[in-house]
Amino acid sequence: MSTPASLQGKTVAILGGTGQMGRGLGRRFSEAGIPVVIGSRDAARAEAAAARLANARGLLNRDAAEAADIVVVAVPWEAHGEFLRGLHAPLRGKVVVDCVNPLEFDRHGPVPAHVWEGSAVQQAQVLLNESIVIGAFHTVPAHLLIHDGDVDADVLVIGDDSTAVDLVCDLAGTIPGVRGIFAGWHRNAQQVEALVANLIAINMTHSDVHASIKITGVS
Amino acid sequence: MSTPASLQGKTVAILGGTGQMGRGLGRRFSEAGIPVVIGSRDAARAEAAAARLANARGLLNRDAAEAADIVVVAVPWEAHGEFLRGLHAPLRGKVVVDCVNPLEFDRHGPVPAHVWEGSAVQQAQVLLNESIVIGAFHTVPAHLLIHDGDVDADVLVIGDDSTAVDLVCDLAGTIPGVRGIFAGWHRNAQQVEALVANLIAINMTHSDVHASIKITGVS
Repeated sequence: MSTPASLQGKTVAILGGTGQMGRGLGRRFSEAGIPVVIGSRDAARAEAAAARLANARGLLNRDAAEAADIVVVAVPWEAHGEFLRGLHAPLRGKVVVDCVNPLEFDRHGPVPAHVWEGSAVQQAQVLLNESIVIGAFHTVPAHLLIHDGDVDADVLVIGDDSTAVDLVCDLAGTIPGVRGIFAGWHRNAQQVEALVANLIAINMTHSDVHASIKITGVS
Repeated sequence: MSTPASLQGKTVAILGGTGQMGRGLGRRFSEAGIPVVIGSRDAARAEAAAARLANARGLLNRDAAEAADIVVVAVPWEAHGEFLRGLHAPLRGKVVVDCVNPLEFDRHGPVPAHVWEGSAVQQAQVLLNESIVIGAFHTVPAHLLIHDGDVDADVLVIGDDSTAVDLVCDLAGTIPGVRGIFAGWHRNAQQVEALVANLIAINMTHSDVHASIKITGVS
């Protein structure tokens, strides 16, 4: 598959790029021919992760944010607010793709975390008020991205800026089997972020399953 | 398709059965050979709707609730709380299937409504504390149920009682093309109820589309 025109010449950074989700996305974007920067708190780990990919390098998260045109945020929910607060300057004017699921876990499994701003995407937009924040990849299992094969899933793309939404739909579409579909503005982000709690419930009642979702009725 | 064993001898009532969703579900359950009672505020309208179905009758909502073993609640969100408060006695001991989406609309479209109890399903369970409330059918477009053809969608079934969850999964599965899948407890109902806001956003950006969801990765 050739890189979509909207992504020609663009570099994508993955902050939290050595975690499960970050590794999976980094691998897939690299395979799509997109220059990738893996960001981590630990430069050596970032470099080691990048060394496994074509056309990729590893940097500290802040340097990775500086170095890229499109910046994917794949850090744990617990770190989300503090992490982004420190990146206002390097993320200025950029498209920030937030794929963080605000969940809390107890012995019964996950529940949505209360987010004062409404959702992780909205929290990111409040903190990064000179960036364009788009929500995406919330319901795609990291396991499927990390392992070989097409990913049988759609990506719900959430955003208030239609040009950036289209760009992120194109980015999602570089993953074999995946469609990026615009699915509402920021004010409808929370339920998409929280839906992974239901996917986890499905995984817990079936063996060796990595549930995701597809939109039907839209060709 | 033969009626599943769990539904043999069971009657299903649809409260709010003359609305879009109620008509769609009533039609499909009737076609599956399940005895159906259409409930409405208006007995004449209930009878008229039932007259178009096999093996169905129309009654006032309260009488329909009395007459059935499984009771589907398909009233508008605005009516939900007051409506159920009045049906505590007729719904006692029964499985109540709540398919109500708490949404508010402004000129930009829908947003999730704040529900004090957390979700419509949780509100129903608080009000109907001697019934077993299950959430289902939230993401299935009424349009697809009303019109001919298979419905290419899965039903996320939400509940705390596994026997009732299985029963409602069986009920969903009587609709051609549909699978009922357990997708979490009541505490994870809100995001499933609200997800229809995202499906509406998808419908608004495509022409003549009735988006729904399917779970992938689960056979």
